[in-house]
Amino acid sequence: MTKLLISMGIMHDVFQTYAKRDGDAETLSKRELKELLQAELPGFLESCASKEKENEEKVKQLVLGLDQDGDEKMDFSEFVIFITAVILMIHGLDPRPCQKTK
Amino acid sequence: MTKLLISMGIMHDVFQTYAKRDGDAETLSKRELKELLQAELPGFLESCASKEKENEEKVKQLVLGLDQDGDEKMDFSEFVIFITAVILMIHGLDPRPCQKTK
Repeated sequence: MTKLLISMGIMHDVFQTYAKRDGDAETLSKRELKELLQAELPGFLESCASKEKENEEKVKQLVLGLDQDGDEKMDFSEFVIFITAVILMIHGLDPRPCQKTK
Repeated sequence: MTKLLISMGIMHDVFQTYAKRDGDAETLSKRELKELLQAELPGFLESCASKEKENEEKVKQLVLGLDQDGDEKMDFSEFVIFITAVILMIHGLDPRPCQKTK
């Protein structure tokens, strides 16, 4: 298996680990996405908002912003696009640092 | 490092391995993308077109379709979105099998 297929396989494993928690392994709910971000991108939620309520709002807004079919859940395609945006934001390749969002 | 960050790191390594061949490590040219697909998704180009000329046209159309800023090159964000679409197509999660395109 090539490196590219291995990396996509790992990403799909991570997605499914959290997606299946509510019985629907095809999509991430807002709660599942939050759990995934807390475990897999430690510090991300904390760096973007200091209080629990703000964290929830941040995740909700991020999900809504990338939830292309409007069902408030995130499928694997939406997840990969979302994670790419988040990681580019964290790594400073995007001019908008997350500290400036509130 | 978490599994999610490891998988994104591998994907970025693959991207840069091919992107830097023309001296610009930030974007993939059509030629670099074709070389990447041939090595990292073996069988993909062959399954979509049988002749060399058709392969080139297929890659050109795919790049143009996902080249959001219109410069005919693909940055890392565009690459991740593209690869996700390709892998979902190959794995049958998308209703449009690539054999039907010519």
